[in-house]
Amino acid sequence: MSDETQELGITESKEHSPGEWYAEVVQKAGLADYAPMGGFIVTRPRGYALWEGLQNHLDGWFKQTGVQNAYFPMLIPESYLEAEKDIVEGFDPEVAWVTHGGHEELEERLAVRPTSESIITPFMSQWIRSHRDLPMRLNQWCSVIRWEATDTKPFFRTKEFLWQEGHTAHRDREGAWDETMTRLDQYERLYEDVLAIDVLTGRKPDHDKFPGADTTTSVEALMPDGKSVQGGTSHYLGTGFAEAYDVTYADEDEEEQLAHTTSWGTSWRALGALIMSHSDDQGLVLPPAIAPEQVVIVPIWQEDTREEVLEYCEGLQSDLEATGLSVNLDDRDERNPGFKFNEWELKGIPLRIEVGPNEVDDEEVTMVHRPDGENVVADRADLVSAVEDALDTVHAKLFAASEERLEEGVREAHGRADILGTIGQHGGYVKTGWCGEESCETEIKDQIAAEIVAVPMEDDEEHETPVHDTCGVCGEESVTTAYFAKSY
Amino acid sequence: MSDETQELGITESKEHSPGEWYAEVVQKAGLADYAPMGGFIVTRPRGYALWEGLQNHLDGWFKQTGVQNAYFPMLIPESYLEAEKDIVEGFDPEVAWVTHGGHEELEERLAVRPTSESIITPFMSQWIRSHRDLPMRLNQWCSVIRWEATDTKPFFRTKEFLWQEGHTAHRDREGAWDETMTRLDQYERLYEDVLAIDVLTGRKPDHDKFPGADTTTSVEALMPDGKSVQGGTSHYLGTGFAEAYDVTYADEDEEEQLAHTTSWGTSWRALGALIMSHSDDQGLVLPPAIAPEQVVIVPIWQEDTREEVLEYCEGLQSDLEATGLSVNLDDRDERNPGFKFNEWELKGIPLRIEVGPNEVDDEEVTMVHRPDGENVVADRADLVSAVEDALDTVHAKLFAASEERLEEGVREAHGRADILGTIGQHGGYVKTGWCGEESCETEIKDQIAAEIVAVPMEDDEEHETPVHDTCGVCGEESVTTAYFAKSY
Repeated sequence: MSDETQELGITESKEHSPGEWYAEVVQKAGLADYAPMGGFIVTRPRGYALWEGLQNHLDGWFKQTGVQNAYFPMLIPESYLEAEKDIVEGFDPEVAWVTHGGHEELEERLAVRPTSESIITPFMSQWIRSHRDLPMRLNQWCSVIRWEATDTKPFFRTKEFLWQEGHTAHRDREGAWDETMTRLDQYERLYEDVLAIDVLTGRKPDHDKFPGADTTTSVEALMPDGKSVQGGTSHYLGTGFAEAYDVTYADEDEEEQLAHTTSWGTSWRALGALIMSHSDDQGLVLPPAIAPEQVVIVPIWQEDTREEVLEYCEGLQSDLEATGLSVNLDDRDERNPGFKFNEWELKGIPLRIEVGPNEVDDEEVTMVHRPDGENVVADRADLVSAVEDALDTVHAKLFAASEERLEEGVREAHGRADILGTIGQHGGYVKTGWCGEESCETEIKDQIAAEIVAVPMEDDEEHETPVHDTCGVCGEESVTTAYFAKSY
Repeated sequence: MSDETQELGITESKEHSPGEWYAEVVQKAGLADYAPMGGFIVTRPRGYALWEGLQNHLDGWFKQTGVQNAYFPMLIPESYLEAEKDIVEGFDPEVAWVTHGGHEELEERLAVRPTSESIITPFMSQWIRSHRDLPMRLNQWCSVIRWEATDTKPFFRTKEFLWQEGHTAHRDREGAWDETMTRLDQYERLYEDVLAIDVLTGRKPDHDKFPGADTTTSVEALMPDGKSVQGGTSHYLGTGFAEAYDVTYADEDEEEQLAHTTSWGTSWRALGALIMSHSDDQGLVLPPAIAPEQVVIVPIWQEDTREEVLEYCEGLQSDLEATGLSVNLDDRDERNPGFKFNEWELKGIPLRIEVGPNEVDDEEVTMVHRPDGENVVADRADLVSAVEDALDTVHAKLFAASEERLEEGVREAHGRADILGTIGQHGGYVKTGWCGEESCETEIKDQIAAEIVAVPMEDDEEHETPVHDTCGVCGEESVTTAYFAKSY
């Protein structure tokens, strides 16, 4: 990290220019840079460490619940994509095509995977013979490309992105639906327990489902600028893909049956939501569960106290590391404490411990919470439990702010003017009755670029008993509640 | 896993038809399948678990030695590849080109990365300003494509393969050379301590270096069929790439200096070497350090002993798992013990514990080593240490066999007929004097497809004092020892 970069600091304001502020935090905190090709980014070590943190949590939960990792080819023959007509229609406009290998033109062009149902499902068809082979749960961590022509926004809008995609096959609707919900719950847990972001869960309107899916469910996170982020999706695919790619099994009576399949994915967009949710005009703010460094110790010394302060700091570091915490002792001589405070605030370390000669004499530590600068003094003897409590508190503060934003961000409205006005003025979600017709969404979308980001699950009371008897847009009878919002 | 597949067993012979045998082990042990496009494979869960095992070891060592993971775009603009002329000449014939995004033809075609020097080095150029930014050590785990028109051999010859590629920049030759050696040593350790394969290390002749490199070093593993596998390469790139992509830094006197760079990589070919080295006509054989399941417990019961045997087995499993071992208790009712023995031998679990009523009564366990069927009985009270010893013994047996193969596989020869005859009859390495001219290698290569896979490092006595005074091919003065072999 060069001096120039460190000394710049964040110059944009989160409140007044959220787009520029976001780009600045991403670059100055060393998370990512823009690649020379529009739509691509370079994920730098501090950004990639966040991805590894997310992977560690999610991959562990997947494995505990019967998922096995695998790896399928990144290139998919065009004829494979075409076997499921919704997939080809849904993704054809945004596929990157490999047409040449070396100096030869290929006989059949190959898609860089935009998602892998069309290569994974045919293999499931080969591997599944009997009911004893089910359920089959596969996942891969990989990158995919979707050639969308939009402005690059690191982690939010990129042509290539890192993600995981899970693909499973089950005997019946019930097994596949349970799977769909298990993964949605894990995504919700990722957001709440790891990223400290409160989320809405729901399903997408039929016209906005994953191509070929029976039901698409998602977690939705509300950003401080009032827009919603689709933070992870879990699809119950019904038997459509099994039919297209011939995934059948012999049941106990040796009768051939169609499998029910699911797919579910979350991408580095979760990192975008993380950065945008908590960070501020000093830079990145990270919850402890995903921070690559959870604690930074900054010694404050004069020439004559250097040795005793440093020794005390090393003791703190080793006690904390022994409990599995990740601790950075910033003992650089060439930087003063103020510079270090700014640097680690910019880079989002959740807890700073300041140690000067007074702390050494009094056998204490001064802990400063990153999100709000709150200062807590603890006895040296209670170091480990005090730091653990402080980290819990930091998580709780971040989550509480997100929870409050979501609670305040859901507003009822009814009637075109009310819906448009409410979203226009406040952003966030507008909750209204909906007749189920796409045209009512289109009306709102055309005027204010807000869409229905979620409707309640079918077994949810809000679906059965909509918030209003009539559709908030057309006034016809409503069949469900719908949540309108602008979204990333 | 369907019944049919399980019951087939390995039908080919490793000795008599090694190619067919290898393909059969890979498929029947559930490691990989062939994809519809020639040159691509699907890595199944048992194969991918081996890759994860390799990653866990290597990634830990990398991080302990200052490496940070990052992620760069999978697509590289043609003009970037062209900035380093050796790279473009070396890789152009085997690049997969993306020419279309959605329905549009791209203005500049994009290479699916065959290796990432040409996108990573320009970013290092941006990030490195002063000597304080050095060394910079980046690594990415990703897949790359090299469009070679060869028969697919899973993990050995595939157009797409998984690998890691490390890229570092240093102040001077010494720093970069140390880095090159550190990574070569880690690859050697991977082979020896994890994969239980003895290796040769050395450097490549100048005409066979990585395009643009100053020095290419590698680990070479001898397969049972007498061919050598290049198992990992570590390149000292000198200042050529730094010059091409402008990687400079200000030294202590504020003078601008060119950085010295390295790159190093190992791919899933290591898994190919693993499978081929140890496996046999019963199927896969795995060393414990990389086996996803290290121990399988097979209960042997009758109706009336079922409960006590099973309870005893569960106790074993929980004691072993408490020490961090990965243990599979195969308590399936529908399979008999013989079937289970065969299945877990096919799948390569290093140690089997058999428990019948006698073991329960005598408070013992019977342990069977996968590689050779050796049977060891231990007291139940010593379970954990007995199993740990047994696993160490299994590793030692596998490594000893590999070590013996390598020792016996290096033969001196001098003169064309002797070299050709020795390789033709025995395979393995022929060690001979070499004048340093490529034409002498070509003569051997043209006749028997063997090449110089390694020459000793320049600081090695075998380089300074060649095994023969004269070149084994042309009879001119020799400048180094060379190792000829057929290779994958």
